[in-house]
Amino acid sequence: VSTITRPAQDPPRPAAPAAANTLPLSALGSRLRAPEISALMTAALENQRLLSLAAGFTDSSTLPVADVQRAVDELASRPGLPEHLQYGSSRGRPGLRELIAGRSIALDGGASRDIDAARTLVGNGSQQLLYLAMQVLCDPGDIVLVERPSYFVFLDMLKGFGVRAVPLPCTDDGVFDSDDLRAVLRGLAGNGDRARLKAVYLMSYFDNPSGRSRSEAEKNDLAAALREAGMLVPIIEDNVYRELWFDEPWPARSIFALRDWDAFPKLMLGTLTKPYASGLKIGYSHGSDARWLDRMAWLKGHHDFGSANFNQAVLEHIVARGGLDEHLAQLRPAYAAKMRVLDAALEDEGLRDLGWRWSRPGGGLYLWLEAPPGIDTSVNGHFWNQCMTDGVLYVPGGLCIAGGGGERFVRLSYGVLDPDALREAGRRFVNAARHVVGV
Amino acid sequence: VSTITRPAQDPPRPAAPAAANTLPLSALGSRLRAPEISALMTAALENQRLLSLAAGFTDSSTLPVADVQRAVDELASRPGLPEHLQYGSSRGRPGLRELIAGRSIALDGGASRDIDAARTLVGNGSQQLLYLAMQVLCDPGDIVLVERPSYFVFLDMLKGFGVRAVPLPCTDDGVFDSDDLRAVLRGLAGNGDRARLKAVYLMSYFDNPSGRSRSEAEKNDLAAALREAGMLVPIIEDNVYRELWFDEPWPARSIFALRDWDAFPKLMLGTLTKPYASGLKIGYSHGSDARWLDRMAWLKGHHDFGSANFNQAVLEHIVARGGLDEHLAQLRPAYAAKMRVLDAALEDEGLRDLGWRWSRPGGGLYLWLEAPPGIDTSVNGHFWNQCMTDGVLYVPGGLCIAGGGGERFVRLSYGVLDPDALREAGRRFVNAARHVVGV
Repeated sequence: VSTITRPAQDPPRPAAPAAANTLPLSALGSRLRAPEISALMTAALENQRLLSLAAGFTDSSTLPVADVQRAVDELASRPGLPEHLQYGSSRGRPGLRELIAGRSIALDGGASRDIDAARTLVGNGSQQLLYLAMQVLCDPGDIVLVERPSYFVFLDMLKGFGVRAVPLPCTDDGVFDSDDLRAVLRGLAGNGDRARLKAVYLMSYFDNPSGRSRSEAEKNDLAAALREAGMLVPIIEDNVYRELWFDEPWPARSIFALRDWDAFPKLMLGTLTKPYASGLKIGYSHGSDARWLDRMAWLKGHHDFGSANFNQAVLEHIVARGGLDEHLAQLRPAYAAKMRVLDAALEDEGLRDLGWRWSRPGGGLYLWLEAPPGIDTSVNGHFWNQCMTDGVLYVPGGLCIAGGGGERFVRLSYGVLDPDALREAGRRFVNAARHVVGV
Repeated sequence: VSTITRPAQDPPRPAAPAAANTLPLSALGSRLRAPEISALMTAALENQRLLSLAAGFTDSSTLPVADVQRAVDELASRPGLPEHLQYGSSRGRPGLRELIAGRSIALDGGASRDIDAARTLVGNGSQQLLYLAMQVLCDPGDIVLVERPSYFVFLDMLKGFGVRAVPLPCTDDGVFDSDDLRAVLRGLAGNGDRARLKAVYLMSYFDNPSGRSRSEAEKNDLAAALREAGMLVPIIEDNVYRELWFDEPWPARSIFALRDWDAFPKLMLGTLTKPYASGLKIGYSHGSDARWLDRMAWLKGHHDFGSANFNQAVLEHIVARGGLDEHLAQLRPAYAAKMRVLDAALEDEGLRDLGWRWSRPGGGLYLWLEAPPGIDTSVNGHFWNQCMTDGVLYVPGGLCIAGGGGERFVRLSYGVLDPDALREAGRRFVNAARHVVGV
């Protein structure tokens, strides 16, 4: 929150004269910029009246306070030395990794292959594992295929690596466009960029920001297109929202259960804490390829030689006694209700009549809105400024679409605010939309 | 602990044939190797009878179980939403950063400059902050000046970056050799390596592995030598053992309080949890240079967008009510007693008579032993094998000295074992030394 602000469009801040001669930055250090999201955080800090539909934080009223307290008490009362407060290992607690692998296999109805405790890595949230995965694969100038839209923190990370994000073409409905996809892959091969293509990044379940999920057929067609182009590149399926469904789980199995992906090096990302207690920050990854996963583990030894063992011990205890699944069962209707509150507020205030379009997601934390033609949702634009005036904050879609074209989109999160605040924030948003009409 | 073993001297493991064609590694990914310490961990796993003087883990019997339990209870009983289980921010909790800055300033008797909450960054242990600091500065082929010996995880990290560690010359007593130091700096300048020199890394208080501390005069002479050579490069002072003194604090102030270092970009590393509850894993850094620290914070946004807020909230609560200082007051005599037990066991069993030399440290977790000429302490050497037979594990000095010459040294830690086990481990170590005499 204390990050220094710089509007997204500014040139790099000139170096402070005193330090400029004595701070020799690396190539990566020189590429780093204040995160574009800082502008949003600063706006929120400067205007306390703002209601934020921007932050991807989780609901505070449903946090499992007593659960965590009880787990800490029970760990403390175990006989023997209190190993939960001692250092752990780089890969994570063996018992926790067993539990995680078992849960992931169960999510695919037992059909997933290549998932076991030995090929599971625990991290400081799934974010760290995504970072390690990319650091092991990518050099500056490399290419990663992403969805359109995609997770904006990942897109920002790629900029830090000097890696180009190329969007996978999709139809207006957000489904992969099979023909255009093949054309893009042919284009990469033709440009001599094939060796530069290092990975494909998918969020196939209740995506951030679009809320969209992918069918097995859609995932398999992507595998076929990549295979046809001779691009058996590493694939990352980021499933952090998979368990946060509202009425029913999304029926598609993960890429670890789909034979069409057998020949690809695969990595699955997940979290134990985003849909539980985000402040505990424990994520995980399963890897099909020992070369990739081993290097991630060795590199994690350099980063921090292991995530906090205490947090892992607390979660191992909670997962083992079914506490995570119990909490998820309570959480799903709570988030579903909040999604419906925000959705209804936008509907009831007449946002569709103003030309805005969106779909109700089946899970996750986000609504993804398309503005009518002529509206630009960028920071400091007309619509943005009207929202500041009306007191509501959103994530501009431009942050979420690599290579441009996101300026007509908005990401709204119903994760943090309570229902009354969501209703009021929705009202303010539609009010702003009423004042800034398109062409 | 589950890391795959490879003896230190082996060539890189050949790639698995199936995956080799499809996993395109980055330059960094290709450089990564299983950590050399893996051989030690595997030895310990394969021989349950081994007593380990190798692990730098902390004492389990003194872990503050009830303290942490109480903090979690008190956080849970606070009115309002349970924000301690919610996400935090990339730089760390503002209240915790205030407390940390205040403690660091107090350690220097109020004399330190450029330390405040805004220029403080919280990390997943101090290790993460060291990684971020180097990632922002160093490209492959760069040079970092280190002590002789130095922290072996850091030396391994530098190999991952493709960075060359150049030892700062010192006398047989471990004090910087003022003349040789200047000669080394002249050599770097003469080789055209001056632009390649990116940082100096010091552990000035109860060093890992040597246990040695540096005087202000010694630190100032290093600053003078660097200034004379026109090398106003970033300096990192890693103070993670500073508060773990036995009879009295080491009297030298940090580089943030010494005017001779004013012109250098400075970073201080510290920990709240190594001398408290290592499983909570919270470290910190203070930076004098906003360009450096900002970039570390932005990069941390890519790594994990903030360390676990829960751990930070627990520690903020404990530090604010004086719990950390109370615990330190109990811990110091406990570690001092364990150091004396191991030291006495080595003395009483006659290790000095066998030609081994070491000093009693004034704090920290380690004894640093010099073997008599002719002994090689490397993994799988004669002495190592004898120790395996006798059932005691140590860290070979070769891991701790960049550029070779560490084969006559051994690091022993008294952190983990209880006094009886320390006595027995010391007896076994001397027994091995009796069987493997030098030339």
